[in-house]
Amino acid sequence: MRIARFNYKSKQDWGIVKDSQIIILKDSPFAGVELTSEKIPLDKVKLLAPGCAAGKIVLTGLNYRDHAKELGMALPQEPVIFLKPATSLIGHGGNIIYPEGVSRLDYEAELALVIKKTGRNIPEDKAAEYILGYTCLNDVTARGLQKKDIQWTRAKSFDTFCPLGPWLETELDTSNLKIASYLNGGKKQDSTTANLIFSANYLVSFISKIMTLLPGDIISTGTPCGVGPMAAGDKIEVEIEGIGLLTNQVARAS
Amino acid sequence: MRIARFNYKSKQDWGIVKDSQIIILKDSPFAGVELTSEKIPLDKVKLLAPGCAAGKIVLTGLNYRDHAKELGMALPQEPVIFLKPATSLIGHGGNIIYPEGVSRLDYEAELALVIKKTGRNIPEDKAAEYILGYTCLNDVTARGLQKKDIQWTRAKSFDTFCPLGPWLETELDTSNLKIASYLNGGKKQDSTTANLIFSANYLVSFISKIMTLLPGDIISTGTPCGVGPMAAGDKIEVEIEGIGLLTNQVARAS
Repeated sequence: MRIARFNYKSKQDWGIVKDSQIIILKDSPFAGVELTSEKIPLDKVKLLAPGCAAGKIVLTGLNYRDHAKELGMALPQEPVIFLKPATSLIGHGGNIIYPEGVSRLDYEAELALVIKKTGRNIPEDKAAEYILGYTCLNDVTARGLQKKDIQWTRAKSFDTFCPLGPWLETELDTSNLKIASYLNGGKKQDSTTANLIFSANYLVSFISKIMTLLPGDIISTGTPCGVGPMAAGDKIEVEIEGIGLLTNQVARAS
Repeated sequence: MRIARFNYKSKQDWGIVKDSQIIILKDSPFAGVELTSEKIPLDKVKLLAPGCAAGKIVLTGLNYRDHAKELGMALPQEPVIFLKPATSLIGHGGNIIYPEGVSRLDYEAELALVIKKTGRNIPEDKAAEYILGYTCLNDVTARGLQKKDIQWTRAKSFDTFCPLGPWLETELDTSNLKIASYLNGGKKQDSTTANLIFSANYLVSFISKIMTLLPGDIISTGTPCGVGPMAAGDKIEVEIEGIGLLTNQVARAS
């Protein structure tokens, strides 16, 4: 099942994507998926980031074996986590705004998940019960600021630096999915989630031992090798097998 | 004026603290301060963290001249920022839970402010218009994890690691306020906001050039010299001149 959050005629709703239509849900999917009889053509809606608009976004540093190898780094013993603010979220089709004074802006294709229900100290073997679905995330990063600050927060927290979407896929075996990014159609990252050091379930458990997870919170699993820079005017896409394609454009601040 | 968020008879409200009473507000103070005729004795309510329960918490690294000197570090040219999740917030009187497996847990007394209205690219000389009020914050930090991870997020993001309160003071000249912390009554930090490298107004402006600020978001200004460890059973207090005393206890996870 594919769950989307969308804007249609200035109203925000959740719905199920089926073929080229969206069936509107009675309530948010965290309360359970109950369909209405209302349908809208998919190409008439604006897709929004499919998470809570005021939730946490917890991301993972180095978490792909191929990326660690590329950087010549030892595999981490524990995940390194960081946060993005909810104000950085945009959906499929939204513009990534290239900030003034930033010299290099990178894409990072990632598999993300959205939390279904409140949880704390979740055992790894129960983590799947707390996951509503999976989606694509682009961990947009101002690489120069990241190196300068050492702390990653500023470099990763600008408005529009967290494209998420296009929707949530609820039934997905994430053990070996192709993950790729495309810059203006050219493949830049090309890996599989089989290269993940810490699995999605492991991360849900690990993070829930630090902070209470709430419905709509987002967890991202890190990026594989092949990250690189974007310029204003570029089209950047993240593709994950079984989920789909998250497309965004880079634009200068007006 | 002192604005408090509180729980009384299982209901959350905002109010104005006057002498030993709270006068309940009609709505949240972000919509404007309008009083009701209802009053409750201050000692009958549970004070809550006086910010948005789902907002951003943006904190500042090294930002006191005395702290930089103590560490033998050069003064930073720009603020270094990081985030705590909203799930780390507790109010005055709440317990700081000492996590399992953490070897050292430190207090850090800080002057914090709460944002009044939505803002982006706020000029420094307009920043005061975006500040609802000032309060005390304790940037509780698992020091060992902070050093281990390099990224500060995990060390500072556990549930209960962000005591905030007791209330917001709306009229305050923050250019030279005494700031102190007390561990079991003994003074541990003793400085003044005159030692701040970057002022509250400067930080509001700086952060608003990165991320849109929303009503209820919290910004903290960093801690002076003298940070140190706490043990389970300890009482920790942050005091700022003109605001008051934020008191919390350290407790083991049950």
